Amino acid sequence: MSSCYGENIRISIFGQSHSASVGVVIDGLPAGFPLNLDALSAFMRRRSPGLSGLTTPRTEADNIEFQSGLTGNVLCGAPLCALIKNTDIRPGDYSGFSDTPRPGHADYTAAVKYGGYADASGGGHFSGRLTAPLCAAGGIILQILASHGIFIGAHIERIADVRDLRFDPVGVSKADFDNLSREPLTVINPGAGRAMAEKIEAAREAGDSVGGVIECAVVGLPAGVGEPMFGGMENKIASVIFGIPAVKGLEFGNGFDCASLTGSRNNDSFIIKDGEVRTATNNHGGILGGITSGMPMIFRVAIKPTPSISMPQQSVSLKDKTQKELRIRGRHDPCILPRAVPVIEAAAAIAVYDAILSNK
Amino acid sequence: MSSCYGENIRISIFGQSHSASVGVVIDGLPAGFPLNLDALSAFMRRRSPGLSGLTTPRTEADNIEFQSGLTGNVLCGAPLCALIKNTDIRPGDYSGFSDTPRPGHADYTAAVKYGGYADASGGGHFSGRLTAPLCAAGGIILQILASHGIFIGAHIERIADVRDLRFDPVGVSKADFDNLSREPLTVINPGAGRAMAEKIEAAREAGDSVGGVIECAVVGLPAGVGEPMFGGMENKIASVIFGIPAVKGLEFGNGFDCASLTGSRNNDSFIIKDGEVRTATNNHGGILGGITSGMPMIFRVAIKPTPSISMPQQSVSLKDKTQKELRIRGRHDPCILPRAVPVIEAAAAIAVYDAILSNK
Amino acid sequence: MSSCYGENIRISIFGQSHSASVGVVIDGLPAGFPLNLDALSAFMRRRSPGLSGLTTPRTEADNIEFQSGLTGNVLCGAPLCALIKNTDIRPGDYSGFSDTPRPGHADYTAAVKYGGYADASGGGHFSGRLTAPLCAAGGIILQILASHGIFIGAHIERIADVRDLRFDPVGVSKADFDNLSREPLTVINPGAGRAMAEKIEAAREAGDSVGGVIECAVVGLPAGVGEPMFGGMENKIASVIFGIPAVKGLEFGNGFDCASLTGSRNNDSFIIKDGEVRTATNNHGGILGGITSGMPMIFRVAIKPTPSISMPQQSVSLKDKTQKELRIRGRHDPCILPRAVPVIEAAAAIAVYDAILSNK
Amino acid sequence: MSSCYGENIRISIFGQSHSASVGVVIDGLPAGFPLNLDALSAFMRRRSPGLSGLTTPRTEADNIEFQSGLTGNVLCGAPLCALIKNTDIRPGDYSGFSDTPRPGHADYTAAVKYGGYADASGGGHFSGRLTAPLCAAGGIILQILASHGIFIGAHIERIADVRDLRFDPVGVSKADFDNLSREPLTVINPGAGRAMAEKIEAAREAGDSVGGVIECAVVGLPAGVGEPMFGGMENKIASVIFGIPAVKGLEFGNGFDCASLTGSRNNDSFIIKDGEVRTATNNHGGILGGITSGMPMIFRVAIKPTPSISMPQQSVSLKDKTQKELRIRGRHDPCILPRAVPVIEAAAAIAVYDAILSNK
Repeated sequence: MSSCYGENIRISIFGQSHSASVGVVIDGLPAGFPLNLDALSAFMRRRSPGLSGLTTPRTEADNIEFQSGLTGNVLCGAPLCALIKNTDIRPGDYSGFSDTPRPGHADYTAAVKYGGYADASGGGHFSGRLTAPLCAAGGIILQILASHGIFIGAHIERIADVRDLRFDPVGVSKADFDNLSREPLTVINPGAGRAMAEKIEAAREAGDSVGGVIECAVVGLPAGVGEPMFGGMENKIASVIFGIPAVKGLEFGNGFDCASLTGSRNNDSFIIKDGEVRTATNNHGGILGGITSGMPMIFRVAIKPTPSISMPQQSVSLKDKTQKELRIRGRHDPCILPRAVPVIEAAAAIAVYDAILSNK
Repeated sequence: MSSCYGENIRISIFGQSHSASVGVVIDGLPAGFPLNLDALSAFMRRRSPGLSGLTTPRTEADNIEFQSGLTGNVLCGAPLCALIKNTDIRPGDYSGFSDTPRPGHADYTAAVKYGGYADASGGGHFSGRLTAPLCAAGGIILQILASHGIFIGAHIERIADVRDLRFDPVGVSKADFDNLSREPLTVINPGAGRAMAEKIEAAREAGDSVGGVIECAVVGLPAGVGEPMFGGMENKIASVIFGIPAVKGLEFGNGFDCASLTGSRNNDSFIIKDGEVRTATNNHGGILGGITSGMPMIFRVAIKPTPSISMPQQSVSLKDKTQKELRIRGRHDPCILPRAVPVIEAAAAIAVYDAILSNK
Repeated sequence: MSSCYGENIRISIFGQSHSASVGVVIDGLPAGFPLNLDALSAFMRRRSPGLSGLTTPRTEADNIEFQSGLTGNVLCGAPLCALIKNTDIRPGDYSGFSDTPRPGHADYTAAVKYGGYADASGGGHFSGRLTAPLCAAGGIILQILASHGIFIGAHIERIADVRDLRFDPVGVSKADFDNLSREPLTVINPGAGRAMAEKIEAAREAGDSVGGVIECAVVGLPAGVGEPMFGGMENKIASVIFGIPAVKGLEFGNGFDCASLTGSRNNDSFIIKDGEVRTATNNHGGILGGITSGMPMIFRVAIKPTPSISMPQQSVSLKDKTQKELRIRGRHDPCILPRAVPVIEAAAAIAVYDAILSNK
Repeated sequence: MSSCYGENIRISIFGQSHSASVGVVIDGLPAGFPLNLDALSAFMRRRSPGLSGLTTPRTEADNIEFQSGLTGNVLCGAPLCALIKNTDIRPGDYSGFSDTPRPGHADYTAAVKYGGYADASGGGHFSGRLTAPLCAAGGIILQILASHGIFIGAHIERIADVRDLRFDPVGVSKADFDNLSREPLTVINPGAGRAMAEKIEAAREAGDSVGGVIECAVVGLPAGVGEPMFGGMENKIASVIFGIPAVKGLEFGNGFDCASLTGSRNNDSFIIKDGEVRTATNNHGGILGGITSGMPMIFRVAIKPTPSISMPQQSVSLKDKTQKELRIRGRHDPCILPRAVPVIEAAAAIAVYDAILSNK
């Protein structure tokens, strides 16, 4: 079902870019858990637009208005509904897109699927705006996971051809997440972050956009979480991650690189460390047979360049079946990745928590 | 849930490497559809072991014994159960693995998850043997899709550092699938196939193994199939594909390459061709916003080198918590990819059919 | 999952009696369908409190505030979120119930399940207030069903020992729904309605309450809807109906009466009528093997007397583990059934629509 | 989905009356649990035909052939497949039913749903034969529940107008289940059992059949199991129970009788007993707000008279659309209830276990 996720928690996301609000209902949260609302707001701000020159000038406070599920700040066991008002709406920016689909967007496919009745304004339900409620859900769950000693961190591993360092797949820890450089971009190596920012700025000036890769690690997960086959950690993570607009690829551990290795190079030897079973290397990314190995879980997500660019593009009139040049005005990020980092963390949190709960 | 998949068809896979049988129950198949049982057997044979020097010498006829769901060869609407006997079983090959987990396998994670009670023999439920019932399900569904003009083909795009050609993302058609070279490996370019075979043979001689990438295309899909967010085509395909042992990465369209492109290069212009809306290029891989665009759907799957290698490896005794050298004897493929090609096609078929049925 | 329903539409209900709002997210509604918002409001009013002396004096406008899923009044295919503000809240009425559970309510079981963190105020998520969003969802779906010629009607079949007539199981039609007497209660026979109203009034004066039975019919359903076994129409209807607080029994066709009949009396002969296959009688209630027969679908729902009564009752202090007398003040219906009639219709609509959509 | 059940265990039932076998796949059973295979066989025999003059002379050994999920007799965590061969098949008994549907059976509705392609032989997938795998699944789960101190017992509460005693809703215990009279029928009061047997015998001699009611109790369940709204214990139990052919009604606690009571009579006072919160009476049947109260859970199931009777009946030719007299020969139970008692226990076990597992 389109905008629902989860077997053990159930997340139902709603809203369009320019509807009254976007939001999420989360069913299955643990009663008695006290939310840190300030920390949640801070997490939401990491996704918010308008914070630097590198993102869209559209400003949204992204304040969560809780409708249910809390008494004070404590989860009460009932489904939680988090509402985020759409305040800074300019529907006029998008008029005409329902007939002339923007390349790289869902305008055309949504028009076909919904027989011309899709809410095309601002991308409707396909807008990146829908990652706000995803972050709300994930931000809540990140706090629950942290109370169990499980931490999730992500950084921009690549923008265009500029690469950051990678997490140490064996030794990555919460401290590494705390030590990430945040300005202007979330990276391990600040120099790489500055070079990436230049790439983004150059793209903006050219009326163009750039893509990249985000790397995410989950630490503190015990061994034995996840299920075989379709219930594997990879499947669960993929099911959420590919729900984020603009994601085109996902790899675990050494991912596509393992395709060029031999088994003797790629296999991770088991060792005993501090009396516990570990692996000497972590090419497997913390998952074997769909089940966590107790090593850090590591995955990377390929994100395409923002499809909204101000350069003129070729499109068609759906009604007239004729070619048509398109110019997108409006407000757009020249690169999605700066704001996508917390979204990836949120998505990972949701998938991991659902998997943990399925462990009877 | 571990070994169940699907919202509109429901697939439930069972069996262990050395249990009485492996099999699958499929609920939701269309009554009245006549199965071509010979074609299904031929499809199953493409996955079967023992067909060439490049795969494991274990021989299994992999004959499907239908328990239900058919009258004659016609689907009757009731759940179909397909059973495949495990005939050539040598449990002795694997004795001892329950205490000394094989690197790269699920022995350790299964031991933790199932508290030491997992059926470790031959990898148990985590064995590649479980792709036989997946192929049975997918093989049936491929026939149903073909009756709707939808065709699926895959080939080995890479083994180690040897690359095949890729499908033409705009023009790929059923004829391209029919024209694939099948011997010794399924490829577009026979020369690449021969070079890959040499890589595999060299790995076998070294007691090692190699990995690679499989590319898969789906043609004939109309625009408008799939759902937004978590119900997207990418999510559905990922949910099945990551259920296949040894898969470590998945990308759609130009996938990870899009991360280094600009939006102006990556966006696919809309055009009118033969009176229909198409895109001039197909970097998006036939999916926009989770919904099919009517262009060929294209994805690639990274598969790790077979973890079972005959070279000595480092492992541990789980009981004694001591280091232990491991030597795997038994029968193993030096490369999984030759037999994985139909498995990828089967997985794609299942996901695509489930998505089509969700289109009310 | 607690407050989610559906395989083909997905309904997620949230809210507590005294939270900011109650509401529902509906995923899977058909794009392009124009809602009649006035008719929806009229339907909601049938459930609203405060309309007559027979129901609680708590007044709630129960206006739906749509957050998403519509452009104007037309469904756009995106998940619809309907919010209903909780306006007339007096939390003080319920103080103390978290330690002294009200007999017949979920106070105790919720306290156990949620470890003392349940929102006890007004019954929290277990309140009858949650039938407001259920009605919102069902009211929308009733309009969609009506556009397909499917109509649903319910009436009070019994309160205490006063019985209404029953629908003619063979001939019941939309006209019978239109002709129901609505004042003071929804019945076929106005005289029975007046006698029921007297029973309710007498219970109120005694500080007590009364229960009853609601009968519901669905007409216009084609034959062939529903699935065998767990996907049967009975299962689907039961899954929603038992989600309504105070429901204790459910029967289809002649239900519990069939237990005392012989097969020759209970079987419904097939006949040809106007060239179509029908049954001469309809003891089966329109469902055979879980699948609709094309005859009217008929079921009855047993609803217990309102557990909130003003007479003193025996309860306990959960903290002190001592006996304690309880007096419930607040505002309560002496009988739930008058307001439950549209709730049953709404529940039936949701189940029926989900079943129809599963018919590929 | 038709023949699948469960959120936390997943049960998938397959087979037709005259297919090679009937069976079930159960995903989510606990690794390490040792099955008592003799006890399971004994449980299966309680459902088996041919044991007394009161049931059909069709004889089926109903031996379970385990395909997977076990090592020896110990659950290994992988999905368990239990196969039961169909041995005593006489398809000729049912020839012609596909055109002339039997009253009270699913022949007609299945013919419509599956476009004439349903396996009509012996009722196909709609046959009571499918309760054999349901019993296999339930019998396994009953053993798991017993290891947690949870026991389930059922008896025939009524056949035609002959009534057995009822379980004491407050005090019923495992001993009451052990003390049930088993011959000729499962009842509390042996005299009632003999009178019921006479009713059945009389129906058989008349070429007719009789229906009745089965009462089921679950003891040992802790308070706090189940979810609000659609995830309530009633909903879960109903979802399985209505999957049993011939079930037409279901009530919890005092069920339909509560409709004629006042709140002051129907509410169950809370008391402290042996330091624990209990209720003085148990009209609520052990469930409040969908969640267990710690009191015995009690429900009753209305089962219609066997639709297969040897008296001539009126039906139609589906092809010719003409009236046609039908005479059913074959082998049939004149009353389903004797063999349905373990089926109800099995169904309750499955629902209860699924609910327990959802309690995080």
